[in-house]
Amino acid sequence: MKKISLDNQAASPLEPAVLEAMLPFFTEHYGNPSSGHELGNAPRKALEGARASVAGLINAEPREIIFTASASESNNLAIKGLLAANRSKGNHIISSSVEHFSVLNQLKTLEKEGFAVTLLPVDQYGLVNPVQLEQAITDKTILVSIQAANPEIGTIQPLDDLVKVAESKGVPFHTDAAAAAGWIEIDVKKTGVALLSLAGDQFYGPKGSAALYISQKTRIRPLIEGGIQERGLRAGTENVPALVGLGVAAKLASETMAQRVKAITLLRDQLKERLLENVPHLHLNGHPKQRLPHNLNLSVQFVEGEALLLRMNMAGIYVSSGSSCTSQALKSSHVLAAIGLPPELAQGSLLLSLGRQNNAEEVPYITEQLAAVADLLRRMSPLYHQYLKEVQNNA
Amino acid sequence: MKKISLDNQAASPLEPAVLEAMLPFFTEHYGNPSSGHELGNAPRKALEGARASVAGLINAEPREIIFTASASESNNLAIKGLLAANRSKGNHIISSSVEHFSVLNQLKTLEKEGFAVTLLPVDQYGLVNPVQLEQAITDKTILVSIQAANPEIGTIQPLDDLVKVAESKGVPFHTDAAAAAGWIEIDVKKTGVALLSLAGDQFYGPKGSAALYISQKTRIRPLIEGGIQERGLRAGTENVPALVGLGVAAKLASETMAQRVKAITLLRDQLKERLLENVPHLHLNGHPKQRLPHNLNLSVQFVEGEALLLRMNMAGIYVSSGSSCTSQALKSSHVLAAIGLPPELAQGSLLLSLGRQNNAEEVPYITEQLAAVADLLRRMSPLYHQYLKEVQNNA
Repeated sequence: MKKISLDNQAASPLEPAVLEAMLPFFTEHYGNPSSGHELGNAPRKALEGARASVAGLINAEPREIIFTASASESNNLAIKGLLAANRSKGNHIISSSVEHFSVLNQLKTLEKEGFAVTLLPVDQYGLVNPVQLEQAITDKTILVSIQAANPEIGTIQPLDDLVKVAESKGVPFHTDAAAAAGWIEIDVKKTGVALLSLAGDQFYGPKGSAALYISQKTRIRPLIEGGIQERGLRAGTENVPALVGLGVAAKLASETMAQRVKAITLLRDQLKERLLENVPHLHLNGHPKQRLPHNLNLSVQFVEGEALLLRMNMAGIYVSSGSSCTSQALKSSHVLAAIGLPPELAQGSLLLSLGRQNNAEEVPYITEQLAAVADLLRRMSPLYHQYLKEVQNNA
Repeated sequence: MKKISLDNQAASPLEPAVLEAMLPFFTEHYGNPSSGHELGNAPRKALEGARASVAGLINAEPREIIFTASASESNNLAIKGLLAANRSKGNHIISSSVEHFSVLNQLKTLEKEGFAVTLLPVDQYGLVNPVQLEQAITDKTILVSIQAANPEIGTIQPLDDLVKVAESKGVPFHTDAAAAAGWIEIDVKKTGVALLSLAGDQFYGPKGSAALYISQKTRIRPLIEGGIQERGLRAGTENVPALVGLGVAAKLASETMAQRVKAITLLRDQLKERLLENVPHLHLNGHPKQRLPHNLNLSVQFVEGEALLLRMNMAGIYVSSGSSCTSQALKSSHVLAAIGLPPELAQGSLLLSLGRQNNAEEVPYITEQLAAVADLLRRMSPLYHQYLKEVQNNA
């Protein structure tokens, strides 16, 4: 049976060059970058090389990059770290209703601790409105945190415009770019963000490799205190192999982004069109154009996402019913609720994310299988039978 | 030239079986453990296997193990997490003056936030006195955090006695067992600790792999909030390859601890005796018996640790002048100060830590080189010349 992963945002195979670069740091170059002797040299040099590569991906300076182990950690370090360093300046935080849980769940805790949190709404495509951001900023606002792109529906925010608004009011801006980095051009100097989170496993780097960009003028406090690694902002022996992998993945993403994006957009659009043509009652979620090139979020009306996932899995096609960080919670998506999708469409949502191993030859099989699975599940769906009855009655 | 690492606590080569077990999780089993489809199965199963192996090393239940990326993270999660969940119960924390910076630096921050911190003194060997712990506990004490063994001077604390004192007063006990786990028997059920930190890279597992044991009755709050990974206590996609490596390293440590400890104690003691016999004015720091089997901390009187490190490095022997997390800070050791070592001995301290690649044939070369380096540096040392003059005058 064919095996096709359309769940590349949850996990992708490493670029072969990434693993190849990592391997020596498990063996001959196993040293600790903090060591004062010879064994520290190769790891230290490699770490600084990786830092430069990650900086290059977003046009930052190497010293503005702090390595972490996940985008969730970067998001927590960014928000909690900035607030800890700026407590006296205010107590108001602005974010959006479609953020990742590593932003939203922190904000819930911060609210209990006395912070005031405004979650900006989004439009039907998932876009935050810069005018609404401007109206939400008060004298007490000390942080705006809005994602660069949504990991679930793929919508790319108008980051430049949003940051400009915050900047004009002197409020530092954090962006969770975990889903976006490596896939859309990000220039921190041009955009003017204070803090930016990214994760290697979102662009063919290893799990456990991530970073936080901290602009030179931004001050934060560490979340993990201890040794003086990462300029004292993130203690703990550096995970050298993973960070070397992150560096190579960042370099490859910088160098090949244009080709990668072109190829995967073509494939994604081809898949989207074939699916929309061949599977009835299928709806696209998120922005039709302003979206991540590898992301496709669809609602299969009248059926349930988990059932779709399981049936597609049986056909050897791996898809997700939502964000991988929450899929086990079996909760309905806060993102789909935020764009106003009615529950009967939200419950049948599928997140298809493409990767470098997908190709055009897979499209007919995927289309055929999704059409068959949707048909099968609809035959068992009371909602669908009700719909058919209504159509008949109206005829 | 020979290359001998005597800095295995800073970094050790992986056990070959560890790397071998990790590799498939970079390639064919690259999936996300949270995925509901087939690609999630192997990583999820491997993660739970690793959890059981880590639990086995310390006689915990698998569900009491939370994976993290470093012992520093575990220490921060343990302390900040417990305090966040128990704020209403008191504001007093007891620790010791010889803790790792990932404990001590947090405590400094917590003091600024209004917590009262008592750092217990240690004796000349680095031991905390259970009677002093008992005297320090007040009605406001909500946490005791004392390491299982000191990473720098190797001294093993009387953990059972210390925990018993805290337990009798109803105060939860955290122990930083980063240096100890894998090298001394730890039984969390018997000892009764509430929280215990450990790190894979201290027993031939990979960097970026660590854990926090949280006893079933202990409640903490997460440091990294977000998805529901690790029972909601540590968000972020799991670093599956590193954690698989941690599991194998823990299993090997459990199975072979007796042999490993016997062999490395023999080698360490042989090295210690040869050095003490052949290098004049050499002093052992830490407890003569109650110490980590692979740790040797020596003071080379009249000379400076960094110079020793560099000269030994030139001879192909890699040693440390202190904890790797702080060696770049070039600060004098807080641990050596706490045991009351005079500055002229503390400045010439060397941390030699053995690993599985060391052997008895290296002992003569190491001895010869340290004797030569000590002699060379002493010839250039004003302190040594002053000492010689005093000896002459007294003769």
